[in-house]
Amino acid sequence: MAEKARKKHLQFRPHFKTHQSAEIGEWFREAGVSKITVSSVSMAIYFADQNWKDILIAFPVNILEIDEINKLSRNITLHLTVESVEAVHCLKENLVSKINVYIKIDTGYHRTGILPPEVFKIDEILNIISASRNLNLSGFLAHSGNTYNANSEKEIIEIHRNSTRQLSELKSRYISNFPGLRISIGDTPSCSLAENFGDIDEIRPGNFVFYDVMQYFLGSCSMEDIAVAIACPVVAKHADRMEIVLYGGAVHLSKESGTDDKGKEIFGLPVKINDSGWSKPLLYSYVSRISQEHGILQTRPEVFGSIQIGDIIGVLPVHSCLAANLAKQYFGFDGKEISKM
Amino acid sequence: MAEKARKKHLQFRPHFKTHQSAEIGEWFREAGVSKITVSSVSMAIYFADQNWKDILIAFPVNILEIDEINKLSRNITLHLTVESVEAVHCLKENLVSKINVYIKIDTGYHRTGILPPEVFKIDEILNIISASRNLNLSGFLAHSGNTYNANSEKEIIEIHRNSTRQLSELKSRYISNFPGLRISIGDTPSCSLAENFGDIDEIRPGNFVFYDVMQYFLGSCSMEDIAVAIACPVVAKHADRMEIVLYGGAVHLSKESGTDDKGKEIFGLPVKINDSGWSKPLLYSYVSRISQEHGILQTRPEVFGSIQIGDIIGVLPVHSCLAANLAKQYFGFDGKEISKM
Repeated sequence: MAEKARKKHLQFRPHFKTHQSAEIGEWFREAGVSKITVSSVSMAIYFADQNWKDILIAFPVNILEIDEINKLSRNITLHLTVESVEAVHCLKENLVSKINVYIKIDTGYHRTGILPPEVFKIDEILNIISASRNLNLSGFLAHSGNTYNANSEKEIIEIHRNSTRQLSELKSRYISNFPGLRISIGDTPSCSLAENFGDIDEIRPGNFVFYDVMQYFLGSCSMEDIAVAIACPVVAKHADRMEIVLYGGAVHLSKESGTDDKGKEIFGLPVKINDSGWSKPLLYSYVSRISQEHGILQTRPEVFGSIQIGDIIGVLPVHSCLAANLAKQYFGFDGKEISKM
Repeated sequence: MAEKARKKHLQFRPHFKTHQSAEIGEWFREAGVSKITVSSVSMAIYFADQNWKDILIAFPVNILEIDEINKLSRNITLHLTVESVEAVHCLKENLVSKINVYIKIDTGYHRTGILPPEVFKIDEILNIISASRNLNLSGFLAHSGNTYNANSEKEIIEIHRNSTRQLSELKSRYISNFPGLRISIGDTPSCSLAENFGDIDEIRPGNFVFYDVMQYFLGSCSMEDIAVAIACPVVAKHADRMEIVLYGGAVHLSKESGTDDKGKEIFGLPVKINDSGWSKPLLYSYVSRISQEHGILQTRPEVFGSIQIGDIIGVLPVHSCLAANLAKQYFGFDGKEISKM
């Protein structure tokens, strides 16, 4: 992804909420990354402590955390995300040092952000920013989360093109008054599949660090790209229904599910772990149900017979961000623990 | 629940996986509880450190944790859950001190456990137990998780009756050879709604400590019984679609959803928090979508207008066990933090 950003002349500001790991952050540093994205003030504090000096919190600013924000902004270049006059006004009144803000634009996902036709809202926010000693405009930011509902790679590219076009129009409209403004996109499907980024200045993908089964279903990655598996002990077997009970439930994998090409609801795909990695997903096998600590692996005789109670099965998660957030620790294949927030 | 158990002459062994709190555990101790249930070895260690002396780990034993099990069993009366000859055999070979085992029976949920007609399996396990110096039979244990799929209170009671009957038959069959054996049930819907427990010796409900929206939908509790809410800051408002964006997503509430009586998928119900508790759920309002950190509160004009950016909205969780597991801390209405694992 770093290489792609370089080739396309895009600022690469990866989202660190997926891994939440100081050590994995260092791998990014080695790839030339110096600016990052996080999703909370506490995550910003964690990575600021790891000597990251330019951090964007890509979540509508929670004005109840103004004290922590003020503390943080004294030490690093901090970027916040805003989408309302109220929040920007509150920042203007309460900031004690310089802060940069991205204005969140809703390019079609309809979760958060200002719709591009609502230029009066954008203008009002920009007026407050211009009138404030401590506020500086970073640019416009979008997250096309609607790519996760796409049914084909073509549809993902269409969503991406549409999102890019809207941000580009805003850039044209405001760049003369705000010469430094940048436009930024974030979703991993678009960043993985798109080749044309138009006027986009910055990308902020996060999930791609691990990818997962959902991204595989979307076509954003190959099965070999998935870089994290949850190690689940086998605790029971039920031959009558070809089910294996894994110690790996909603508190380990999360309850996120995906739908495979046969319409089956899937909570994870099993792999066999070896000394240096893992196998392809086991044939005709998938985590079919999940409760708090149990994962039910639905399988077939040839796989069923090869797995015993006391084995450890790897489960490729449907949504690696949620599974990694639940994990207490990571281990690499050198057996060493990888630090985590 | 303690009172109900006393009246019905049932051993009350509450499940502590819902709250995972040393301090809330003490409230149980004050209600006369001395035996508890947990779902993992690490949780058993946490509560053993809190001076709990009789702990059941109600999850099929993970034989990879045999060292931790051996350490723990030296200090407390430890009960494990078994459902396979392999696991019991492994325990027999590797235990260093006395351990009690419950045999898990599948009375209809079909997640784990031995089906009652498979008496040959039960016999084989009992033979290993009898031949072992360190193994002692506690009894038979079931969890009728299928009550969570019931469509009426009547259906819950039918499932409960059916489960109770099957355990009772096993008790009759084996009690002469194992005079101390007890039969134990666990699900909160049955324990909340049933009045007749037949031969049951022990109940192990956990969720009832907080209850939640799912239990309310099932009829296990009233809205006023729900005892935990997730405090979610309001970060954005979108009048055009009557949506309020909460800082409360899948990493706070989990992705568990329930279906209300109008067929709507719900991820939580909003309440207004005051100094001593919270309001009834806000009319016509519910968390309709959820992503990693965002919760989208769908609402109507009268509620929409009463909520501002920077407010804190309480969200009654759909599944309190998962939301509490994700929570970093609890606060009581005296403002004090309540300790958590």
